[in-house]
Amino acid sequence: MQKIALIGGGLVGQAWAVVFARAGHPVTLYDASPLIMEQAEANIAPRLNDLTRFRLIDNPDAVLGRISYAIKPGDAVAGADYVQESVPERLDVKREVYAELDRFIGDDTIIGSSTSGIPASEFTENLACRARCLVAHPINPPSVTPLVELCPAPWTDAKVVERVAELMTSAGQSPIRVKKEVPGFVANRLQGALLAMALRLVEDGVCSVEDVDIAIKDGIGRRWSFIGPFETIDLNAPGGIKDYMARYGPLYEEIERSAEDPLEWSDALASRVEAERRKRLPADGIPERSEWRDRRLMALAAHKRVADEKIGK
Amino acid sequence: MQKIALIGGGLVGQAWAVVFARAGHPVTLYDASPLIMEQAEANIAPRLNDLTRFRLIDNPDAVLGRISYAIKPGDAVAGADYVQESVPERLDVKREVYAELDRFIGDDTIIGSSTSGIPASEFTENLACRARCLVAHPINPPSVTPLVELCPAPWTDAKVVERVAELMTSAGQSPIRVKKEVPGFVANRLQGALLAMALRLVEDGVCSVEDVDIAIKDGIGRRWSFIGPFETIDLNAPGGIKDYMARYGPLYEEIERSAEDPLEWSDALASRVEAERRKRLPADGIPERSEWRDRRLMALAAHKRVADEKIGK
Repeated sequence: MQKIALIGGGLVGQAWAVVFARAGHPVTLYDASPLIMEQAEANIAPRLNDLTRFRLIDNPDAVLGRISYAIKPGDAVAGADYVQESVPERLDVKREVYAELDRFIGDDTIIGSSTSGIPASEFTENLACRARCLVAHPINPPSVTPLVELCPAPWTDAKVVERVAELMTSAGQSPIRVKKEVPGFVANRLQGALLAMALRLVEDGVCSVEDVDIAIKDGIGRRWSFIGPFETIDLNAPGGIKDYMARYGPLYEEIERSAEDPLEWSDALASRVEAERRKRLPADGIPERSEWRDRRLMALAAHKRVADEKIGK
Repeated sequence: MQKIALIGGGLVGQAWAVVFARAGHPVTLYDASPLIMEQAEANIAPRLNDLTRFRLIDNPDAVLGRISYAIKPGDAVAGADYVQESVPERLDVKREVYAELDRFIGDDTIIGSSTSGIPASEFTENLACRARCLVAHPINPPSVTPLVELCPAPWTDAKVVERVAELMTSAGQSPIRVKKEVPGFVANRLQGALLAMALRLVEDGVCSVEDVDIAIKDGIGRRWSFIGPFETIDLNAPGGIKDYMARYGPLYEEIERSAEDPLEWSDALASRVEAERRKRLPADGIPERSEWRDRRLMALAAHKRVADEKIGK
């Protein structure tokens, strides 16, 4: 087992505590805000109960027993093999936190950042430990959604990426290697491409916001929840993916040509989409609907686990 | 109950037979090829057994009893309220079949086409029944995946679209309205945008084919299987979708700028993607893996039905 330190105790840090403690690692959490520390301590137990209810963990008390809280960042990272940083998404905050960590951490300690948008090279360049820093970006909450995007800075040691990949895999996560620092890494680039087309369909009056959601959730999004987009098309032509690309490439090139102007994420477009969404879900219903989504994600994770075993993976 | 005729008895036509017969409608299937007619008759019973095993239908014998086979197209469509056409994806074939149907069908009969790529205006313009023709494009197999894209030609009667939407909804399908004839309708435009970005990531060396699939199936694709892309982002910022668009619009615009050159679906790129896929799945394993996918889709549909009831929709 490896000693894990978590820097940042918001929703993402809390979910990481569950991930690593569930895998048997001792976890110490630190946040600069005493209020957030209190919330983290209050939130983690109910979160474990939810996961137990959906059979995603067996023994919530044992998991809880592995999580401790530090009053000083130095105490949290003392002797840590791995630090997962989940502080707010601001470059100045990241730089300050990493400068502090650089003084405290051991010579072999690795630091992964939960950042969704800031490449590691922007906040690690001048650190003594920079070869041991990388991005380890989860999809929230990592305790339910296993994807972790590992993206090194140009100076990150390749072995460090592999060690974090092994740690994540052994903890039940699904690490992928993002080999270059590109905006949005991989997952948000894919999401962004889909969203841009979805917004164009609404802007051009092709269909409603609601119908875009139905097209995905009652259509192609079902395949994507257990095989990805490439395996999907590999199974959608008799001769596999190359056959598919030869058959449908011209259609997709035509689609791309017909949506070539860059989309502006304008206020007018946002208002239009907002108006349609608010008819389906009033603004004050968002927190409750988000809790419903998290329960559905847990139920889906439990379903996938059973289906992996019974029908095959 | 409405009398349903199915023209074209391949995999898509067979799945439509299940959809309509399961909903209680009498169904008559016709295919110009006696061989395909034989295969349809042989395939539908085992297909019903699979659906029964996953608790997606209760009484396979009753469903089977509602499906009959016609030897002449005129017999199939005689007295039909709705015709679902699923003949091969070739414009000349569609035109010939529709010219024939135009002579046979009743004055109120509606014809929906399963075409994934040919707009109704290209094969219905000169028909007497053209106001009653539209595209009703399923995601294969419609017996498991409920999305149906309804896309009228410019001369299709608006009431016809609504009548088909009602028929589909009452049969447990999820119809959406595609208001303009655009290449790829809605679902394949969304899929195409995602695939183009996925191919770019591989071409640019950002990540592997396998890691794209993991990014979706173990990440954002999970949400998309029960809420669509718009509801996903509506729940991903405290103030809802407009707040999300204001926060992340600049990132997504940057992503789009960094992938602006139109992607060529080239043979070289197809070969590269193919090589990675064939390491994961040899070509001769595709049929078996496709059967596995269909069982997973059925298990997912059953899971969604239970989760809709227990956790809410």
